[in-house]
Amino acid sequence: MYQPDPNPVLTPSDLRDILYFTTNLARRAGDLILEGSKAIHGISAKDVGEKKNSVDLVTEYDVKVEELVKEEIGRMYPEFKFIGEESYSAGSQHPLTDEPTFCVDPIDGTTNFVHGFPFVCISIGLIYYKRPVLGVVFNPFLDQLYTGVKGQGSYLHTRGAQYKLPLAPPRPLPSLSQALIAVEWGSDRSAPQITAKSDSFLRLAGDPNPSASRGGDKAKVEGGKMAHSLRSMGSAALNFSMVAQGGLDLYWEIGCWPWDICAGTVIAQEAGGLVTGSSKCSHNGDVTEEILTGRKYVVIRAIGDTEEEKGRDAQKRIIREFYESVEEVDPN
Amino acid sequence: MYQPDPNPVLTPSDLRDILYFTTNLARRAGDLILEGSKAIHGISAKDVGEKKNSVDLVTEYDVKVEELVKEEIGRMYPEFKFIGEESYSAGSQHPLTDEPTFCVDPIDGTTNFVHGFPFVCISIGLIYYKRPVLGVVFNPFLDQLYTGVKGQGSYLHTRGAQYKLPLAPPRPLPSLSQALIAVEWGSDRSAPQITAKSDSFLRLAGDPNPSASRGGDKAKVEGGKMAHSLRSMGSAALNFSMVAQGGLDLYWEIGCWPWDICAGTVIAQEAGGLVTGSSKCSHNGDVTEEILTGRKYVVIRAIGDTEEEKGRDAQKRIIREFYESVEEVDPN
Repeated sequence: MYQPDPNPVLTPSDLRDILYFTTNLARRAGDLILEGSKAIHGISAKDVGEKKNSVDLVTEYDVKVEELVKEEIGRMYPEFKFIGEESYSAGSQHPLTDEPTFCVDPIDGTTNFVHGFPFVCISIGLIYYKRPVLGVVFNPFLDQLYTGVKGQGSYLHTRGAQYKLPLAPPRPLPSLSQALIAVEWGSDRSAPQITAKSDSFLRLAGDPNPSASRGGDKAKVEGGKMAHSLRSMGSAALNFSMVAQGGLDLYWEIGCWPWDICAGTVIAQEAGGLVTGSSKCSHNGDVTEEILTGRKYVVIRAIGDTEEEKGRDAQKRIIREFYESVEEVDPN
Repeated sequence: MYQPDPNPVLTPSDLRDILYFTTNLARRAGDLILEGSKAIHGISAKDVGEKKNSVDLVTEYDVKVEELVKEEIGRMYPEFKFIGEESYSAGSQHPLTDEPTFCVDPIDGTTNFVHGFPFVCISIGLIYYKRPVLGVVFNPFLDQLYTGVKGQGSYLHTRGAQYKLPLAPPRPLPSLSQALIAVEWGSDRSAPQITAKSDSFLRLAGDPNPSASRGGDKAKVEGGKMAHSLRSMGSAALNFSMVAQGGLDLYWEIGCWPWDICAGTVIAQEAGGLVTGSSKCSHNGDVTEEILTGRKYVVIRAIGDTEEEKGRDAQKRIIREFYESVEEVDPN
């Protein structure tokens, strides 16, 4: 019986074409996001029906952006599959296959979007043989466009210029205590989830050494790592991109979805970053289907080789150190 | 006996002149910060003595920027006093007087600076009769310059354009549960300090309603406010500016210093924000010497009037709600 080829071959040249298409699409989506922001924040309030509130508008623009992206992809690459936040919620997602599959978060950082906090992006990834192979992340508010293609490097395009990632030669990273770490409070605030996260954050930030406080007690944070600090910006895709850039050392996430991190994964990997899943995964840099869909992620920046240790080994060592310090709870 | 006039009169026109001077100075300081970043991150590694490490370089540029700013101020306004982070550390700070006093953080966000996380700024404030009256905050990495002058409004200058703050008409803010809140882990990680902060963050984020978790227990976060989310960017001056812009609803800080928040205070106030100190202070919007030097700060964005409540009353109500939720520990 005749079977159509389920796996069209994507050459490096095909991926470059897809990147060109995806970048333009991300910029168009960015325009729509800016339009949505103006509607939400009343800069052109007369254009907005009075009965709509911010949350309705966010949902409306989330859907609008996904529709634009889905439609354009359907026109240009009708044989590719599509996984998106909005269509997933509607229950129509496809299971992961070997076929080229776009994996899209139309608006990553929706809480930021509602509040006018300018860390919001469109995230478009491409999965092929169940591995992320291409990613575009665009923050239209700060005009920062990140791209990555498997085997072809990753870049930041901003203010008319293009920069290869990471932005600077990778420095060493002796331990977690030297790290600037991104974490997020996320949307699941039920006591078991948020308490585990909060305890983990406290251990990452806290001093393991007893301090003579004013009251004279010798309190210490058990297992404290005293990392340089913790940052929270509210967008997984932008956190991955910032790790790729080298501005963050590590980013930990529990509870987000493949479309939040698919594009960022390629951008980070192509900048020498290592992306992995939960503590139980193999941290060898292969982002398998298990990791991609596992809703637990760690990404660590490129680390420079030292005389004592290869950068890749240092990445794995610090991920192990990290997982010894935090508490993993299964997301709801 | 002859007494020189200790209190030169600063007219609104004088303040405009000082703003012009200060803005240019901030841009020059920004160039120096970018130069420092290149040195630290090795983009022009050949220019850097090999024996220097990042921390030495940060200190070096912190001092360089403060020297530039101090020198230029001394040339232009020799009769004005000066309070700066670096000179304060050296023990030569002046007590607060009625005289015009520049209050400067040469590099706010030094941890970010070390890591190449692009939320770093120079913060130049002016105090007059013990009240902040002028502020300039400049992030050279993102080309964002914020200005505020008492009675003359505050602005964001970016990518060649100027925007009045807040960027959009102030929305209502019914309660803390609707808020996007900035908090910082800070540099004091001793157990009493960091545990109090961490507990406070957990209450701000956590769900006060019992959730049936998988294990079947009914755990809840006591006193949880379930705010929209928490953000941490690592620069007090930029957090104040973001509240002024309207992108954050509230920012809470314990442990930073007058020079971290002096400029941002004016920027926020002129955008309709309310700045205050610890829970014990009067939250009437007057940033007294007690508040300015108290090392505990809250700033809340402009809130739109509703039929039921004036925005100013809503600000005070939410600050009270906030202080009922968090634990205040005296900074070391």
